[in-house]
Amino acid sequence: MALLVQKFGGTSVADAERMRAVADHVVRTVRRGNQVVVVISAMGKETDELLRLAREVSGTHPGREMDMLVTAGERKATALLCMAIADLGVEAESFTGSQAGFLTDSTHMNAKITEVRPDRIREALAAGRVPVVGGAQGVSPERNVTFLGRGGSDTTAVAIAHALGADSCELYTDVSGVFTSDPRIVPDARKMDHVSFDELLEMTANGCPKPAMRSVEFARNHGVELHVRSAFTWEAGTLVTKEDHDMEQAIVSAVVHDADEAKVTIAGVADRPGIAAKYCRALADADINVDLIVQNTSADGVTDISFTVPHGDLARAIEICQAQAAEIGARSVTGEPAIARVSVVGAGMKSHPGVAATVFETLAANDINIEMIATSAIRVSCVVAEREVERAVVALHDAFGLADGPVYVD
Amino acid sequence: MALLVQKFGGTSVADAERMRAVADHVVRTVRRGNQVVVVISAMGKETDELLRLAREVSGTHPGREMDMLVTAGERKATALLCMAIADLGVEAESFTGSQAGFLTDSTHMNAKITEVRPDRIREALAAGRVPVVGGAQGVSPERNVTFLGRGGSDTTAVAIAHALGADSCELYTDVSGVFTSDPRIVPDARKMDHVSFDELLEMTANGCPKPAMRSVEFARNHGVELHVRSAFTWEAGTLVTKEDHDMEQAIVSAVVHDADEAKVTIAGVADRPGIAAKYCRALADADINVDLIVQNTSADGVTDISFTVPHGDLARAIEICQAQAAEIGARSVTGEPAIARVSVVGAGMKSHPGVAATVFETLAANDINIEMIATSAIRVSCVVAEREVERAVVALHDAFGLADGPVYVD
Repeated sequence: MALLVQKFGGTSVADAERMRAVADHVVRTVRRGNQVVVVISAMGKETDELLRLAREVSGTHPGREMDMLVTAGERKATALLCMAIADLGVEAESFTGSQAGFLTDSTHMNAKITEVRPDRIREALAAGRVPVVGGAQGVSPERNVTFLGRGGSDTTAVAIAHALGADSCELYTDVSGVFTSDPRIVPDARKMDHVSFDELLEMTANGCPKPAMRSVEFARNHGVELHVRSAFTWEAGTLVTKEDHDMEQAIVSAVVHDADEAKVTIAGVADRPGIAAKYCRALADADINVDLIVQNTSADGVTDISFTVPHGDLARAIEICQAQAAEIGARSVTGEPAIARVSVVGAGMKSHPGVAATVFETLAANDINIEMIATSAIRVSCVVAEREVERAVVALHDAFGLADGPVYVD
Repeated sequence: MALLVQKFGGTSVADAERMRAVADHVVRTVRRGNQVVVVISAMGKETDELLRLAREVSGTHPGREMDMLVTAGERKATALLCMAIADLGVEAESFTGSQAGFLTDSTHMNAKITEVRPDRIREALAAGRVPVVGGAQGVSPERNVTFLGRGGSDTTAVAIAHALGADSCELYTDVSGVFTSDPRIVPDARKMDHVSFDELLEMTANGCPKPAMRSVEFARNHGVELHVRSAFTWEAGTLVTKEDHDMEQAIVSAVVHDADEAKVTIAGVADRPGIAAKYCRALADADINVDLIVQNTSADGVTDISFTVPHGDLARAIEICQAQAAEIGARSVTGEPAIARVSVVGAGMKSHPGVAATVFETLAANDINIEMIATSAIRVSCVVAEREVERAVVALHDAFGLADGPVYVD
């Protein structure tokens, strides 16, 4: 008998029929002799709808009230799923984040979990009831409801799996697992049977939309194995585990991309210590999420600094850099919104140095200009023109033979 | 400076535009130097929608989960109204029933308030924030969310007004006040400036749909003055107060009707002690809400008992009476669904005995047969055929000259 956490995302429970299908799966899992804790998101696009309604009602959105608003969606979903499970003859009990023991800080709309005390969950399990927990919510020290942010249900699932010592944490979604690339762009993208935490973290940090990056990081840090699978076909999906040094490592596992990128270039800055720091500090103080930063050494004491930000931050980033440039000097500050980042990820890259070369050769062979390069031990990223990124993804996926299967380190 | 409770029903806050209109009114009230506590229902028909969804998802509806489900609506509404108020430059703070200090019993879907501890409400008021409380909800001793039932937001409003010692409790709705009759049936029905608790209680107990009867009873028992008014025109509405024996009493204030009535007649029962009791006890044990009971004394030791129940209970009531009849004897048990009750209500009736006579004469003059009669000190009710009830209402409203103004006791 295993203790499983099963998380279901919005599309998986979008309507009454899906609710019943999910309830059926949960009950089957229980009847096979397992204990199941369910974590559930709001139905369908309800969270988006609530946020849209908030914008329609008001231009002012106090954090405490936004959290009260968006968490209404999960409460509705948990209650309905409990009813559907009860209809199949199994007792279920709904839990808000607070009732499930999720203590958080007071950062509304993006709260961080400080502690998980799942006592009432354990009681329910001991009494033979299926706990159904509203994802992405907790309670602050001031006893206000808090929202963990978009993707927070994945975090709830991983955190509760860890707190309970669950055998597995299954993240059910509307795709059958983690793919080698976006199947909408790469028709022969392949579902991976297995991917490591570090690889998946690089993937989600570089454009792969699911699971939520924060939850992958949490899972990695706490050793919670994940199973990403479909709530529609119920087939076996992708297992996400620690890298096993006895296991084969794929040189390249996946190609991901992120089109929500814009570039800012500060040209002609003095190449001396502290300059880059001033720009970065000014941006950080304005809460701007700087992604890639590229600066080369210069021959003549003057250099350029480029960095990337999400599209939504481009205008402010340019303002801030112009203000800095006025103080500390630069030839120009320019912005370029039409860029995107393509990244090749693979655990085996560490011991196989030819990957970067293959990436650059492939892009060149396809006449795609590389504007910026950034790498980590298991990732090679290139910033290209936005209109080229899909071609780049297809070409790289093909160049590494990802449609056929993983290519392992020898 | 007054402390006001302002409650807004579902149609009053049905969409973003209405939310903003209500926020505007609240802020104007505050800016005139008052403290305001807002109580709010779910938006529009959301409660009905949630209940419909529950039926679509499942045939099983555990009470705890139903309460978790339906209360999601008020949470959404309170958060949005707070945002709309904040947009106008006034701080507002949302409160769940639990946060507002509403302690209830554990009767899910129909919880009773056991205590109100509005400490956090007082804190918010002292800090200059407008508390916005989700209506119809509380928390049970087991720390589960509870729903007070349909119409429960009126109860929340009255209970919080009492607990805070508010100067007034304003119930905002989609009509401009309490009318002498249903304006859809009686075109010249008049909005009353004033009605007593006892009269309004009789009216809501006999078919007038708003305010919720339970809240009127609470208001009467705790001396909380009500002001029923429109959230659309914002005009002065109907004041509901204790009967003032110095004030003029209207002989007849209103004519109400209730078409959700069905009649059961047990014919030919022995006219001896205990017979009626057996039937009534059997019905009460089955949780059937018996309304009017009519039994006459008989000349020959045999009599008929008739009583009325809501349509939904007719079939079960007949079954139960037939079972009793089999045991203790009766000639027949018959049901009649197509009946309705029309009631004339007036505080002054107590000292003006001609009202019942006028009622019977008016109905006779309009060829409307009276099937059952039941009275209280301030009400005369007649059960008539359902197809006649609207004619009966119009005729009685006219007979008592209610369109022109109250007719007072001399």
